[in-house]
Amino acid sequence: MILTVTLNAALDITYHVASVKWNDTNRVRRVRQRAGGKGVNVARILTRLGRPAAVTGLLGGDTGATIRRDLAAAGLDDRFLTIDGESRRSVAIVSDVDGDATIFNEPGPRVRADDWARFAQHYAGLLGDAAAVVASGSLPPGLPDDAYARLTRSARARGLPVAVDSEGPALAAAAAAGPAVVKPNAAELQRTTGLADPLAGAAALRDAGAEAVVVSLGADGLLAVTGEGTWRARLPQPLAGNPIGAGDAAVAALIVGAVDETPWPLRLESAVALSAAAVAAPVAGEVDVERYRELLDVVEVTAG
Amino acid sequence: MILTVTLNAALDITYHVASVKWNDTNRVRRVRQRAGGKGVNVARILTRLGRPAAVTGLLGGDTGATIRRDLAAAGLDDRFLTIDGESRRSVAIVSDVDGDATIFNEPGPRVRADDWARFAQHYAGLLGDAAAVVASGSLPPGLPDDAYARLTRSARARGLPVAVDSEGPALAAAAAAGPAVVKPNAAELQRTTGLADPLAGAAALRDAGAEAVVVSLGADGLLAVTGEGTWRARLPQPLAGNPIGAGDAAVAALIVGAVDETPWPLRLESAVALSAAAVAAPVAGEVDVERYRELLDVVEVTAG
Repeated sequence: MILTVTLNAALDITYHVASVKWNDTNRVRRVRQRAGGKGVNVARILTRLGRPAAVTGLLGGDTGATIRRDLAAAGLDDRFLTIDGESRRSVAIVSDVDGDATIFNEPGPRVRADDWARFAQHYAGLLGDAAAVVASGSLPPGLPDDAYARLTRSARARGLPVAVDSEGPALAAAAAAGPAVVKPNAAELQRTTGLADPLAGAAALRDAGAEAVVVSLGADGLLAVTGEGTWRARLPQPLAGNPIGAGDAAVAALIVGAVDETPWPLRLESAVALSAAAVAAPVAGEVDVERYRELLDVVEVTAG
Repeated sequence: MILTVTLNAALDITYHVASVKWNDTNRVRRVRQRAGGKGVNVARILTRLGRPAAVTGLLGGDTGATIRRDLAAAGLDDRFLTIDGESRRSVAIVSDVDGDATIFNEPGPRVRADDWARFAQHYAGLLGDAAAVVASGSLPPGLPDDAYARLTRSARARGLPVAVDSEGPALAAAAAAGPAVVKPNAAELQRTTGLADPLAGAAALRDAGAEAVVVSLGADGLLAVTGEGTWRARLPQPLAGNPIGAGDAAVAALIVGAVDETPWPLRLESAVALSAAAVAAPVAGEVDVERYRELLDVVEVTAG
């Protein structure tokens, strides 16, 4: 199985309202709620592709219990570790009139050093069954910047490919631990490296130690800087839809490509098509698989 | 004990943010959360006044379980009935910069007819220990408009005074069942009776059957239309603070006055002082008891 790590898992709550009355009381028309966090979304997409996946990370409190029930309802293999503290919620206010979305993210529980040590052991035990590891999302308060770097090194020591989707010091440290691929978007890459040019930023993370750097450029698709060459991949026309979750879909495709050792142009085709199929789906963590297969044929990959 | 009924209990969540970035992602600085719903707040205030109180109503799901844990932590006597469905949350977004507050209320679970029948039995059992009943807040989806009217009639049949704090058809029906007091604010009274003048609206609810009608007028204090006369009660100067919870404090004072058979001018003094002491407290359901005692001396009550 592919093991996805979500150290700051969330309960993603969506409130649909007519239009927001600011500084007033709003009646919520419809509530949707599901287990979230980038790694959880990656695992949902892997499962939709027919690739066995397990989810791990840190959970706690009433919200953690609700997340677990949703993971079970979704048929995900739940290997989260329970810690003290209350898992975070993320509340998205979506206007049904104009489609505007405003998101409020709770900070998440402060992780104690002994919980982190317990997790490192727990994670090492899970690696025995893993074909690859995905480490995604922000770090909760209390964790050291080298958290993803440590997880990457443990997996690498067992010969497992690792994908890291994060930013800032956590991503910079992880890159130095030699993951198979890191996937920041352009803004995250700039915040991590200080370089505005995606090509220069990607080269910097490669120099730091990442085997490949794939930068998501929104409607401009993906830029991949790898040991085998540099490519750009995109759709002829961008798709309209919900961009949340597109990055998770790209990561899912990239880790599958790493496990299967697919040639890079095909990995990128898959990553762009799967991202677009996620954009076309209404909820983060979902993809339209049929759409994905159709889109594989239209992705344009160019070298250099 | 005084039994408070909250048919649409809530988990009240407050998110403190710096200032809201609309149509963007916001980091929540601080999360507060507690069991809410008007009846729960009334019970908290009664407890602070040293009056034994019990809370009942309908709860369900993960959110219901969280509400129960908070009721226990607050030392409230929890007599809620568990039903299928998920209790609602209420999320208040508060800007720490300008104090603006925007509230999003989930609708609450749809109550089935058999749950409502079970509750009627459960409630009748609780009346044996009750000295009075408070029925507060909106009705959840699925309940008939005469829900509070039925609860009022059952209590009246045992000679218990009832206070109802609601609006619209639920309040109109409840008034006809002969509660000791109803306490709408001016806007709720207008929505219930169609009459813009609070004095005329109060007279209409008295005519319908309410023994007394107390209208909260914000900074203008309270207007009481009773069988013993009409009074207005107010502070010489309004207090600044959080107006949420002021109405619940007034209801707490009014039901205590009904149990103790306090003369109306003194009940109104207490209701205005307790409301103001709630406005001065940072959280709904809290009052500054010392402030309350000081304010009793400055409330102005005038007849007619």
